[in-house]
Amino acid sequence: MKTTETLIHARWVIPVEPDGTVLEHHSLAIDEGRISAVLPTVEARRDWQARSNVELPQHALIPGLVNAHTHTAMSLLRGIADDLHLMDWLQNHIWPAEQRWVSEPFVHDGSQLAIAEMLRSGTTCFNDMYFFPEVTARVAAGGLIRARLGMILIDFPTTYAQDADEYFARGLALQDEYKHHPLVGCCFAPHAGYTVSDEPLKKIQVLANELDVPVHIHLHETAGEIDDSLKKYGERPLDRMERLGLLTPALVAVHMTQLNDDEIRRLAASGASVVHCPESNLKLASGFCPVQKLLDAGVNVALGTDGAASNNDLDMLGEMRSAALLAKAVHGDASALPAHTALRMATLNGARALGLGDETGSLEVGKWADLTAVDLGRLETRPLYDPVSQLVYAAGREQVSDVWVAGQQMLKSRELTHLDLPDLLQRAGQWQGRIAASDTSL
Amino acid sequence: MKTTETLIHARWVIPVEPDGTVLEHHSLAIDEGRISAVLPTVEARRDWQARSNVELPQHALIPGLVNAHTHTAMSLLRGIADDLHLMDWLQNHIWPAEQRWVSEPFVHDGSQLAIAEMLRSGTTCFNDMYFFPEVTARVAAGGLIRARLGMILIDFPTTYAQDADEYFARGLALQDEYKHHPLVGCCFAPHAGYTVSDEPLKKIQVLANELDVPVHIHLHETAGEIDDSLKKYGERPLDRMERLGLLTPALVAVHMTQLNDDEIRRLAASGASVVHCPESNLKLASGFCPVQKLLDAGVNVALGTDGAASNNDLDMLGEMRSAALLAKAVHGDASALPAHTALRMATLNGARALGLGDETGSLEVGKWADLTAVDLGRLETRPLYDPVSQLVYAAGREQVSDVWVAGQQMLKSRELTHLDLPDLLQRAGQWQGRIAASDTSL
Repeated sequence: MKTTETLIHARWVIPVEPDGTVLEHHSLAIDEGRISAVLPTVEARRDWQARSNVELPQHALIPGLVNAHTHTAMSLLRGIADDLHLMDWLQNHIWPAEQRWVSEPFVHDGSQLAIAEMLRSGTTCFNDMYFFPEVTARVAAGGLIRARLGMILIDFPTTYAQDADEYFARGLALQDEYKHHPLVGCCFAPHAGYTVSDEPLKKIQVLANELDVPVHIHLHETAGEIDDSLKKYGERPLDRMERLGLLTPALVAVHMTQLNDDEIRRLAASGASVVHCPESNLKLASGFCPVQKLLDAGVNVALGTDGAASNNDLDMLGEMRSAALLAKAVHGDASALPAHTALRMATLNGARALGLGDETGSLEVGKWADLTAVDLGRLETRPLYDPVSQLVYAAGREQVSDVWVAGQQMLKSRELTHLDLPDLLQRAGQWQGRIAASDTSL
Repeated sequence: MKTTETLIHARWVIPVEPDGTVLEHHSLAIDEGRISAVLPTVEARRDWQARSNVELPQHALIPGLVNAHTHTAMSLLRGIADDLHLMDWLQNHIWPAEQRWVSEPFVHDGSQLAIAEMLRSGTTCFNDMYFFPEVTARVAAGGLIRARLGMILIDFPTTYAQDADEYFARGLALQDEYKHHPLVGCCFAPHAGYTVSDEPLKKIQVLANELDVPVHIHLHETAGEIDDSLKKYGERPLDRMERLGLLTPALVAVHMTQLNDDEIRRLAASGASVVHCPESNLKLASGFCPVQKLLDAGVNVALGTDGAASNNDLDMLGEMRSAALLAKAVHGDASALPAHTALRMATLNGARALGLGDETGSLEVGKWADLTAVDLGRLETRPLYDPVSQLVYAAGREQVSDVWVAGQQMLKSRELTHLDLPDLLQRAGQWQGRIAASDTSL
């Protein structure tokens, strides 16, 4: 008899790697937080003994979802100003609210709320870009969820930092603190081409290379951004990134709704990753990312929700569905972005974008046991002819039953095991009261 | 003290009419299945006495959702063949499965499954187009849900009818049987311009006028349909409808992804309704319906899920969200199709399209008490600055807590009161086994 800490027996195991695989009646063994075996359940029951056995008789077990672009703390601004023109939204609502309220307690409570929502919808890893990342890092590192925190940088002063030197100092201190942490690490996060000048980007290029961390940036989000860059720099934002030495495998370029064929070729050749955020792009009328063209060219395309203020949820199952549906219409082909590809974008491609391709994103021996179980036995996913189709096109976040991060169970039969839900709701309510009182339009 | 059968006390009542209204701490009185009062809860508690009181302390009470286009029985084919080109999907999977399996028992079990899913996601009325509509009518009329059944007509023989005469005979018998039924009624449902020739359409024009029932038809779904019509008839499908006298307030034109400005003007002038099915249009790569332009022109635009084989759910909350998000990108304006408008499309506009504008679709005194309660107290919809934003952009179908149809509670704290869920799932499983065995690709 082989022994292991935990055995999970699932109706379907969808490992993502190899691509397109569905394993029926398979089990997964976990030891010291990592996957130690993936094998047929009949063999697992015959040859293995575990301290804990988990039965998932009508569930799909998939890699935990990787949300490759979000602003977690903005969950406290969910729905504060919808259906507005982008600049009205930013200038008259989001920026004033941020200027007034963003602080360590805001980021603490917003991050916890976001992490609770992400765990409840099957996400086990997120890539964040926001102020006070050390607070979000502390929340995540408390044993909750895998995270990459942005060492944020923006040309103007905020409640978090006054100038580039201070942004760098705070970011690098964070990077140093977490460089050996099993769950938490850092990315550089210059906000966008239109908000960060050349000098700090050059410095990021040198440091990212030296520290071997990704560079997470909003890029080619709107047509207006391209026009402004042409006016100001005489070049498109991607050209500028290339000139500054930032078009490398470390680049995590978010949105990318405006791309010509030459840019798609150069992105593929560079090994950079693109993060597609379909719901945010729709909601802010930013444009349509040519996802299928990027995939055809060989670009690593990951998936993100963006923040809850422009989505308005952090539901990666829903985001997969939106991505798969939208790509068909944008590409004019109902076979574009099939279900298996959507799942791969939401898991392994995200992990790869964050430099975590060997650590998470697929169910392979040796990787962290970052896992999500989805109950496909509900009537909303019945009958069932193909579990991956059901997962992408029919399952809802409420069907996520169990979630593990590095082998620790964070969601158990829909209950959060490490977060106090009534307390979270109470704090969200307190912020709602304060913020609503300060936005005169509410 | 005034007396009434039922009083429902809600944190928010969103009546849809008047447009844009949110009533805080309001109550709704129900008598003999109809709304007898909408008033502040403080007055209801002071002045009214009810046999039954329902407390919804953190819920939005909205009109039951109206799914203005679906094929309920196709729920048994949910996910049978995804990510395929339209013609491959139809010719190699859907049509062979229908030819082999569509029958009274198939329609019975598929309709029940669909109705269960619709009730669980807040839909209280649907407009159906499928074979054996008398079976679906019987299921709905069993006190479950409001429905308009299509008197279907298509130029070729099916397991349901051999020729136009038989389609008409069966349809008209159905119409006659239900003409005074409180929940169930009929529409004419010629399948589409490309599958129904002029003669039966002329007959429908005469009969629809005589019987005063809507004409429900797939129209301008794809660019290919327009090309084919130009080749075959020398005119676009809408021109052909006009020539045949069918461009009237009775027309319920589904999809409409291909429209020029002149057609939009003529639709508005005619009083016809359009049913927008955003998720199906995306999934089948059919094109983008110019919803905001239609609304601006004054067209009554309703919302539908289409069948579960091309969506793959019957979730109208999700469809509202998809419609609101997509319209912004299609219109290039983040203020297009705001949340209140999405809710109106999914309720009152649907009711009006079906000739039920005086009976359901808004919370007004005298209308049937077709109601849906959505629990906005979950963390996925907190904090909450605007209940309609949360409803459209953040709430999931799992937050639908209670549903009433004509005052009868059909869903109570998420439990179906009139349908046997384990039995439904078992029958869905039996169909899955048979159908999968007959589709060699599965």
